[in-house]
Amino acid sequence: MASPTVPDIVVGRLPLYLRALAEMVDDGKEITSSQELGERLGISSAQIRKDLSQFGEFGKQGTGYNIAFLSDQLRQILKVDHVWDVALVGAGDLGRAIANYGGFVDRGFRISVVYDNDPSKIGKHIGPFEISGYTGMVADIRARGIRVALLAVPARAAQEASNRLVEAGVRSILCYAPTSISVPENVHVQYIDPVLHLQRMTYYVH
Amino acid sequence: MASPTVPDIVVGRLPLYLRALAEMVDDGKEITSSQELGERLGISSAQIRKDLSQFGEFGKQGTGYNIAFLSDQLRQILKVDHVWDVALVGAGDLGRAIANYGGFVDRGFRISVVYDNDPSKIGKHIGPFEISGYTGMVADIRARGIRVALLAVPARAAQEASNRLVEAGVRSILCYAPTSISVPENVHVQYIDPVLHLQRMTYYVH
Repeated sequence: MASPTVPDIVVGRLPLYLRALAEMVDDGKEITSSQELGERLGISSAQIRKDLSQFGEFGKQGTGYNIAFLSDQLRQILKVDHVWDVALVGAGDLGRAIANYGGFVDRGFRISVVYDNDPSKIGKHIGPFEISGYTGMVADIRARGIRVALLAVPARAAQEASNRLVEAGVRSILCYAPTSISVPENVHVQYIDPVLHLQRMTYYVH
Repeated sequence: MASPTVPDIVVGRLPLYLRALAEMVDDGKEITSSQELGERLGISSAQIRKDLSQFGEFGKQGTGYNIAFLSDQLRQILKVDHVWDVALVGAGDLGRAIANYGGFVDRGFRISVVYDNDPSKIGKHIGPFEISGYTGMVADIRARGIRVALLAVPARAAQEASNRLVEAGVRSILCYAPTSISVPENVHVQYIDPVLHLQRMTYYVH
């Protein structure tokens, strides 16, 4: 179903569509249209139809999309029709907020282990998780078959931690550290750095 | 200097360049090249030269870029050659992590006030900030001349909070709530939703 030739920018919009559909379900809606989705997201209805058409035929002209069906299809395409176990590295303020965040599991992700290399944190708990040290981390992540990780460590610690994650078999890293990390080609990295977003907006403020 | 016709995707890369240059300064470097910047960021040197050429002439063929000069120029272009006061709305786990984050001020932003509408939080402190309620928020933000805000409230509370921010004169909102908010055309919104990034990566995991 998922053609390897779909542009990444299209792939990047699918999670937005899925999130908007989930909100519509919460609102009690069962049917939607590319117009309605587009208004909610600030994306043109033509773009939405074109994006979805890359993956199949999900609605009928004139009758719109069945929200539950389209959501199921998008979850399959994005491979979040099951829940991924996730390793969290970094148990500072941000790691704590991430560990306590309730919004992951409904959308395909479940933090299952937390690491930090600060001896004063190892053995302590954040939420339901006991913090583990880096010793044994690679073997542990590999044994658990974890492919997805959240990296919430300081910038100077990010490359070493990501090296361990890659060695352990992790293939998707979401990096909260404000730096760029180097990974092999078969590993995907996405970044969250609030200042990048803020600076992109202040450019436009007169 | 900042041409209004520069594509937003180019604007979006400038903060990445600025961040990489700051890391080079930390490493004690004074001169760099588009090749070196590109390797650090995983962006082609041609792209970097093309992006920078939209704003002026910042380096000489063969001698590279003076890092301090280019950084100053980028800070001016992005309007972070001064520090912006920022309002933080939402004092939960995430708001707490944001308020305690030390990485804003060196890069042009300083949280100066924190709001939450939970009566049990109002008057309490996170870090150096006393949490204020929503009463008086619009007048207070306007009086302070704040144009930038961080929105770290639950999804269901995001639209109402953003309405208040817009009414108060805020023109740049970084929304951490996992939802889309509606704002007037003269207001910029960027979103941070970790699940969108994770789902975009699991698409590629076999």
